Amino acid sequence: VVTAARAGRTQEEVRRHNLSTILREVHERGARSRAQLTEATGLNRSTIGVLASELAAAGLVREVAPVAKGGAGRPSFVVRPAKDVYVVAVDVGVDVLSAARVGLDGAVRAQSRMLQRRSNPSVTTVVKRLGRLVDEVVADAPAGATCVGVGASVCGTVRISDGMVRLSPNLGWVDVPLGRALSDRLGLQVPYALGNDADLGALAEMTRGTARGCQDVVYLSGEVGLGGGIVTSGRPLGGSGGYAGEVGHVIVNAKGRRCRCGARGCWETEVGEDALLAHVESDRERGRGAAEAVIRAAAEGDRQARKVVDRVGWWLGVGIGNLVNIFNPEVVVLGGLLHDLYPIAQHRVQEGVAAVTLQAPGEVVRLSVSELASGAPLMGAAELAFEPLIADPLGALEHQAS
Amino acid sequence: VVTAARAGRTQEEVRRHNLSTILREVHERGARSRAQLTEATGLNRSTIGVLASELAAAGLVREVAPVAKGGAGRPSFVVRPAKDVYVVAVDVGVDVLSAARVGLDGAVRAQSRMLQRRSNPSVTTVVKRLGRLVDEVVADAPAGATCVGVGASVCGTVRISDGMVRLSPNLGWVDVPLGRALSDRLGLQVPYALGNDADLGALAEMTRGTARGCQDVVYLSGEVGLGGGIVTSGRPLGGSGGYAGEVGHVIVNAKGRRCRCGARGCWETEVGEDALLAHVESDRERGRGAAEAVIRAAAEGDRQARKVVDRVGWWLGVGIGNLVNIFNPEVVVLGGLLHDLYPIAQHRVQEGVAAVTLQAPGEVVRLSVSELASGAPLMGAAELAFEPLIADPLGALEHQAS
Repeated sequence: VVTAARAGRTQEEVRRHNLSTILREVHERGARSRAQLTEATGLNRSTIGVLASELAAAGLVREVAPVAKGGAGRPSFVVRPAKDVYVVAVDVGVDVLSAARVGLDGAVRAQSRMLQRRSNPSVTTVVKRLGRLVDEVVADAPAGATCVGVGASVCGTVRISDGMVRLSPNLGWVDVPLGRALSDRLGLQVPYALGNDADLGALAEMTRGTARGCQDVVYLSGEVGLGGGIVTSGRPLGGSGGYAGEVGHVIVNAKGRRCRCGARGCWETEVGEDALLAHVESDRERGRGAAEAVIRAAAEGDRQARKVVDRVGWWLGVGIGNLVNIFNPEVVVLGGLLHDLYPIAQHRVQEGVAAVTLQAPGEVVRLSVSELASGAPLMGAAELAFEPLIADPLGALEHQAS
Repeated sequence: VVTAARAGRTQEEVRRHNLSTILREVHERGARSRAQLTEATGLNRSTIGVLASELAAAGLVREVAPVAKGGAGRPSFVVRPAKDVYVVAVDVGVDVLSAARVGLDGAVRAQSRMLQRRSNPSVTTVVKRLGRLVDEVVADAPAGATCVGVGASVCGTVRISDGMVRLSPNLGWVDVPLGRALSDRLGLQVPYALGNDADLGALAEMTRGTARGCQDVVYLSGEVGLGGGIVTSGRPLGGSGGYAGEVGHVIVNAKGRRCRCGARGCWETEVGEDALLAHVESDRERGRGAAEAVIRAAAEGDRQARKVVDRVGWWLGVGIGNLVNIFNPEVVVLGGLLHDLYPIAQHRVQEGVAAVTLQAPGEVVRLSVSELASGAPLMGAAELAFEPLIADPLGALEHQAS
């Protein structure tokens, strides 16, 4: 019943698949000896040699003779990701815009950010700002370095096919063509890819964070509301239109507060920024900074703040329990504001989880804060930007050259 | 980040993959001409010819010269699934045990069933009963017909690796080795596979029911409680241990009823059998029959029954909305008791869905009753039983012969 599996495979497809496998290995794990690649891929050593040479000829890896260890046997060439291949990543958050130049080895070569007020900025304004940030991070790229893609993370639902932001309540955007505006401004002749911030946070944590090696992951992004980036059996949960993962809008408390989506009792009404600020009366004390202040106050023993944080912690646990029952993940990663909240509310979160989680999925799940913290969506955008190259290394280069 | 994609592919793997593609095509769609197979698989006509001959030599398909249409050009051989290859499927429901002999073309050749009381039957009792049912459906198989697998559906969480039923509240089972007991009783030297009834219901609806051709499917099975069989991007949602899909235990009404799992406000407390019987006081009027009677009474205008059905319908809609926001499916299929409930409560269900569903995923989703109705899990068990053969036709046969 899997359409993708229906297609027969040709020789050429097998070769391209194997090139991709090797490039992904050095991209994710760094320099690898041919012996290590042989072991990781199941391909034989001479095939690895041929494929690595092809990647080297394309300028994607370098092959380095190892320092002799004095032992017997042939030395194993080491395959390294090329130093001068990079992507540009940007992140459109509610409060912060950021950009980075990221190498094929996953290292951030340059990074730049600016704060912005919550004032429903136009796409023109946002793209102008992003453009300046990108100019900065690209300015000191070495001569001859090659940009192979642009990836963008945005706090909203995204139509993958054309980079249209369908809905971002926090930016006040409905059907905003961010992908097109960004490519118009940057003018780089490379593939552009947009993704939802929580989806990209999950991708980053799986590639280089606390969910490395996991196949079933729930990443929760606490921003103004609550986003979910979910991976099942190693694949991102996209849904039929790319809108899956709206876990903030699961009704958990039917008699609870009205949500800005219109429904009553959505999970994010109990654990979003506003839930932390429910006892704050002045409209001037809102926003991310105010929410972080409540968490700090609770940590320092303020009783009212403690009560609020405990309540939010409990509901966070209940909603996590729901997702554990649905997805049976190996790990639930807490990102954004939840990264700061969890250490303070850990006990109540775990009580909430325990009250809801069934035994079998509860036995295997681990709760963890995001290792990449607020940088997760940006790093995920970089991974997204590398994906066309890594999925089909030679095809991507041919396409760019043409 | 996909482990399965890391492995390099060899020639032999490509050939096996292509054989699988062709066999799956004729299994799911029936007799196909070589021209149709060429179109469906993207392989060229001579490759199709070679592969079809291999499958024919293995006894899995027959190649039939078509009746000449009188036109020009070569006639296209028709490839049919072999008539004498079958699987045995069984379904362990709460109230009904059933067995079927199902051909490679998907047709039920023989079927048998028996009612059982809800009295926490032992696995020995259940397997003894299943054994008799299987004996009946196998008895009139043609001489020389080959059984290639046994598939079993069970109303509980299943450890796929060894067919252990981890938990079935409705049978009163905890860690019951149904797979082993079944293979001991039946004694057939073929692969055995167990699955959860809702997962198999989803599989059946996607292969031969209302979700044909869909890649993102939520199948809801209303039995005593509520099970979910979920498919995302064409793949069943299994989770890290095979326990995913426990949608009945999503907290939707935190101040609601206590669930038998111990939590308060699980979705199934609002839409399960007991919710339909909430107004019935006598313990003697419980069970599936009583729940069906409430639905019938509502349809016939009984006011109290109508009220109950409306309430359950609303909560069914709310929970469906939750799942639509999480999964962005193409279709939500209502099976089991919900198959009967939906036509009566349709209006309220849709109101609940509309109150919760976000716009983007709401635009694309379709609600549908199960086409295979109560037979869906059994038909899914048959598909599960065919899977090893179809995934690797020659490998499966070699394995059986050895």
